[in-house]
Formats: sequence, structure tokens, C-alpha cells
Amino acid sequence: MDRRSFLKNSALGGTAAAASALAAPAYAQGKRTLTMVTSWGRGLAGVFDAAQKAADNINAMSDGSLTVEVKAAGELVGAFEVFDAVTAGQADMYHAADYYFVNQHPGFAFFTGVPFGMTATEMNNWYYHGKGSAMHDQLGEIFGLKSFLAGNTGPQAGGWFAKEIKGPEDFNGLKFRMPGLGGKALGKMGASIQNLPGAEVYQALASGAIDGTEWIGPWADEKAGFQEITKFYYTAGFHEPAAGLSLATNLDVFNELTPTQQSIIEIAAGHTNIWSLSQFLMNNSAALERLKAGGVQVLEFPDSVWDGLGAASQEVYDEFMGDELFAEIYNDYIASMKASSGWITQSTGTYRDQRDRILG
Amino acid sequence: MDRRSFLKNSALGGTAAAASALAAPAYAQGKRTLTMVTSWGRGLAGVFDAAQKAADNINAMSDGSLTVEVKAAGELVGAFEVFDAVTAGQADMYHAADYYFVNQHPGFAFFTGVPFGMTATEMNNWYYHGKGSAMHDQLGEIFGLKSFLAGNTGPQAGGWFAKEIKGPEDFNGLKFRMPGLGGKALGKMGASIQNLPGAEVYQALASGAIDGTEWIGPWADEKAGFQEITKFYYTAGFHEPAAGLSLATNLDVFNELTPTQQSIIEIAAGHTNIWSLSQFLMNNSAALERLKAGGVQVLEFPDSVWDGLGAASQEVYDEFMGDELFAEIYNDYIASMKASSGWITQSTGTYRDQRDRILG
Repeated sequence: MDRRSFLKNSALGGTAAAASALAAPAYAQGKRTLTMVTSWGRGLAGVFDAAQKAADNINAMSDGSLTVEVKAAGELVGAFEVFDAVTAGQADMYHAADYYFVNQHPGFAFFTGVPFGMTATEMNNWYYHGKGSAMHDQLGEIFGLKSFLAGNTGPQAGGWFAKEIKGPEDFNGLKFRMPGLGGKALGKMGASIQNLPGAEVYQALASGAIDGTEWIGPWADEKAGFQEITKFYYTAGFHEPAAGLSLATNLDVFNELTPTQQSIIEIAAGHTNIWSLSQFLMNNSAALERLKAGGVQVLEFPDSVWDGLGAASQEVYDEFMGDELFAEIYNDYIASMKASSGWITQSTGTYRDQRDRILG
Repeated sequence: MDRRSFLKNSALGGTAAAASALAAPAYAQGKRTLTMVTSWGRGLAGVFDAAQKAADNINAMSDGSLTVEVKAAGELVGAFEVFDAVTAGQADMYHAADYYFVNQHPGFAFFTGVPFGMTATEMNNWYYHGKGSAMHDQLGEIFGLKSFLAGNTGPQAGGWFAKEIKGPEDFNGLKFRMPGLGGKALGKMGASIQNLPGAEVYQALASGAIDGTEWIGPWADEKAGFQEITKFYYTAGFHEPAAGLSLATNLDVFNELTPTQQSIIEIAAGHTNIWSLSQFLMNNSAALERLKAGGVQVLEFPDSVWDGLGAASQEVYDEFMGDELFAEIYNDYIASMKASSGWITQSTGTYRDQRDRILG
């Protein structure tokens, strides 16, 4: 499917501009209030924090010219309805993980995280000094969005399982929560995949509606309480070596803003990106120790599982490569990953080995 | 030496506030121009870019309320005079690498990079979600500065040498350019250390005033042209596993700004931090390939050299631990590094190994 067919298939494509005009945001004395809908339950560790930080940044810098009001999932629209709400002009901006919207376009996966894809550092290289940001624009414009990365969870954990995963066959029949292309890859391994908003995962796991889940990493997962239900925790995951969070503004709304207001949103998002990544990374190690102390078994997938996941992931990519824009993003993404990873291995990789050897 | 003795020994300590009042920045219709002096030659790859980006960010977001004018090294004051110029109120802000100012206080080293210290990711974790930023404030206040990280070169290369380094004894008598605590450690190995501004390094190397130098990494080093003079290039370095760049504003000037203007400077700096790191990292791999193609020999230090550097670095730390504030920063820095590195190894480390194994 090419980008024109996506446009044609989008129920909202033709009407977004009109809807936006109908739902024009409130003006008062040159001041503008922007409603931000999010995919996050209020206070959800790390992810809601990033949405709030982006809003706080915008509010702090705009001297009253912009006031962003943050809505948690369910307060105005549901966690996964934020995309339609913003493209239709019902809300002004969303904060979410763009891979929730792979059914709108599979290319959105690259702006969160994809199987065997970029780490957060590599992703930022691509986004700020490769074509990443421009491709995010290209994709967003189809749906009437102006998007910026505004957060990153860092590497996501492999997830929580009721039993040990000893080989690829152990995914067969597993009811598992995993969004994006990673979920589609697990589907190839025989798993039954569900995509649930963060706020609903605990209940699904507790009720047995799912057998296991990935969520984020030790800190956010501990806060979600999954250790109360399952005890097998896989630290390294194949599916999201980083997970970018996006701040997407209705494109008509964005275009009505002054250049100053537009810069404020862009730079507020960029600052949130680094602030958010470091929040997750600063808290994960201590949380992992607490989880272990509480009886959680921390494990790594065996090589046979990684091999199976690698093959399944490639199948998923292959299925989407017929779409012109997906293929364009994929090819550029892979080229950028290769271009930026070499030096990181050669410098930080060698250094970390020596530091570990010498400092212990 | 404790922090009071540093204050007492600073020729500028007592007069900063008065000098600032004398050199009050220009006001016109509520608009304020801020002069930013930098340690960088105009256009110096990556580092001048970061200074300019921070200024551009501030200017773009402040709707004319702030106009930052960037001065290259030598245009108003010399590369290493920016600290005194800003603490004395001769200029409003500087962009530099804070370890240029270890003679003002050795604690400044931690806000650029230190031997066997944090990677850029670990540093951001400490800065934004540990005590890093607060300690930068604590140190800056002694000298009348309000500082923010506003750039990072990522891991710096071991440097350029006229001959191969086969053992720790090869540093003996070497005339080498290296700032900060890394330079002091090389001094312990018998090297004769010089601290030269970036714009002066090429000439010093070409003239034989120094035998070798570290500067930044492949991209910036190639632009500086060191490959025209020396052919032995060590990729991983011990001295700056990351190198943060600081935007420091005269504290009196900063305190006179509105909360909105203060937020704009802080968030502009944070955005520049991630933008700058990714600029270096995106460009290094391709530059390294070009250097190799041009005949540069790319090498790694043998373990015996790393061991020697480890011991020398510890000696340097030990010498400064008598200073109360240095010790406070060091202890917190090391604790934060340990706290944030575990998860990174366990997740991204394992993932990178598997990705390399499967994708090749």
C-alpha cells in the first residue's frame, strides 16, 4: 500500500482541516490554550511524567502565550484514541508512543522502537542529524500532524512471563501484551498478541486474560506491580531497544502558531526527550535490585530464542516493504543505524570494557 | 583546599557583583542582548556549532526579549579567558568545556569529563535525575555563575601520536595536549602536558611544539586536519568518556532575568545537549572510515597502558580529595555512575551483542 492509498483509506484524511476549524481552540487576549491528550494513565511512571514535562516546558517558556493542559487517558478520550482525536481536531496535541498507531501507518513504528532496531542514542542521531525528524514530518503530514520526539524509555525489558522461556516454541499459544512490530513478530512465533494501554495491563495479567506482558523496564514495571503476579523477568528485549515518545500537534493548529510558539514546542520536546530518557535510566538499576530482592527471577533469553525472534522480525519487515513510504523509512533507518553504531562500539564499547576491567 | 580558600584565592571572587553592575547589559524597549563568549574558534566543528545552537534556541523562543550574540574565541576575549570574563561581568555568558577551569576549581572537571568516568548517557542521568545539575549550581555559585550542560562531544578519541604506544613507558617525555584531569594523569605517566585551545592545536602539532594531541573524535579531528601531520590514531580514550559543554551565565545577570527568560535558557541548553551529542555521534563513523582510507592507522591502547592510566588517574583523584567540595562531587558522581551503569549493561549491552550476532 503506498502513501496515497493510506490517505484514501483514512476516514479522517479529507475532513481533518474542517473538523479542526470547527473545534478551534479558545483564544483570550492573544493567549492560547492547547489541550494535550495522552495515552497514559495519570501519574503513570515515566510516560505521564514526560507528557507533563513537555507541557511544563512549553508553559514555562511561553510567558502565558501558550497554556498546555494535559489530559490523562480516559479523561477526554481513551489511550489509543488520541491519534484520531488530534487528527480530527478534537484535541490540539497528543503525547503517546507512535507505534500504537501502526494500523494507521506501519511507518509510525520507527518513531517508537522496532525489533533489532536502534538504541536511544542511535535514534537521536538519526532524528536530529539524519533524516529521522524529516521522515516523522513526512509521515505526520499524511494525517495532518506535526510531530516531535518528546521522551524515550530507553531499552525495554523483554518482559514478564509465568514460566521460563527455554526455546522459541515456548511462545506458541502464549497470550502476550506487546504493541508495534515487536508484537507482530511474536505473533509469527505463535503467540496471541494483545495491545493494551499501560493502565489496563495489570488487571489483564491478574485476571489471566494475558499470560505475560512487556511494559517498559524495571522502574516503571515495578511501579505497575507486575512482580506481584509473575516471577520470571527477562531484562534484554528484542522488540524495543529504545522507545521514543511523541508529542504530535494538529498540523493546522501548529501552522496557526507564531514562529516563536512553534520553536517553543519543538525545543520543549527536545529537552523532554533527554530528560525523560535519563529519568528511566537513572531509576532502573535500583528497581531491578529491589525486584530481585523480592523474589523475581531475572533471566535472559537463550540464543535460540533470539534467533527465532530475529527471523520472525525479518518476516514482519518483509510484509510491509511493499509500502513505498515504509520501505523508504526502513532503508534510511537501517542505513543510519549502521552509520552511527560503528563509532559507538569502537569508542564507548572499548572504553566500557576497559572501565569494567579496571574498576571492577 | 576547601571551598572558602578557593573563594579567597580567586582574584575575582569579591568583585564580580560590582563589575557586573558596571558592565550592565544593554536594554532597549524591554529587550535584552546577552553577549556569549566561547572557547571556540568560529565554525570549529561541533563545539562552535553547539554554542551557536544554544544561542539560536534562546533567540528563537524569546520573541525578541533576549538576543544572544555569539563571540568566537579571540573576538572579545581569548578561549580560556571566558570564565574570568563572565565571572567579572565583562560578558554575560560563556560556552566552553568546564574542565578548562580546573585551576579555578578541580570540581569543574566533572561537568566535562573525567578519567574512567561517565559516558554521555550516564552523565545525563546524573545531571537531570541525580544531583549533577544541583552540584553544577553549587560550584558555579562560588564564582557567580549559573551553569547548564549545553552540548556533549560523546566519547573522545585517545588521540593522535607520532609513534605507536606499546606500553605505559611510551608516555614518558611525550609533549602532549590534553586538558583537565586526564592531562594531569598523563603527567603522572611522565608526559609533558599542555592545554591549548582547539584553534591552536594544529599549529602546535605541525610545528613540533607538541608530539601529539587529543582533540575530540574522528569527525572534529578530521576537520581540524591532524591526519595531515600524524598517522597513529587511538580511538578509545580513558580521559573523556564523554565531554559535556557548558553554557554559564553570570549569576547576577541570570537573577535579573524573568522566570520565563530563565526557563528559556535552561531548556534551550538541554535541547542543545542532545542535539550536539547526536551531531558528533552521527558523523564519527564515516569520518573514521575516511581517515583510514587516507592512511591513518587506527589502534587501541594495549591493556598495560589502560592499567597504567587507571593507576595514574586514581593518583590524580586522590590528590584532590582533600578539597571538601571536590570530594563531595566525586563521591556522588561515582555512586551515580555505578547506579546507572548496571541496567545499561544488562539491557543495551546484551541487546547490542545479540543484534551484532544476528544482523552481523
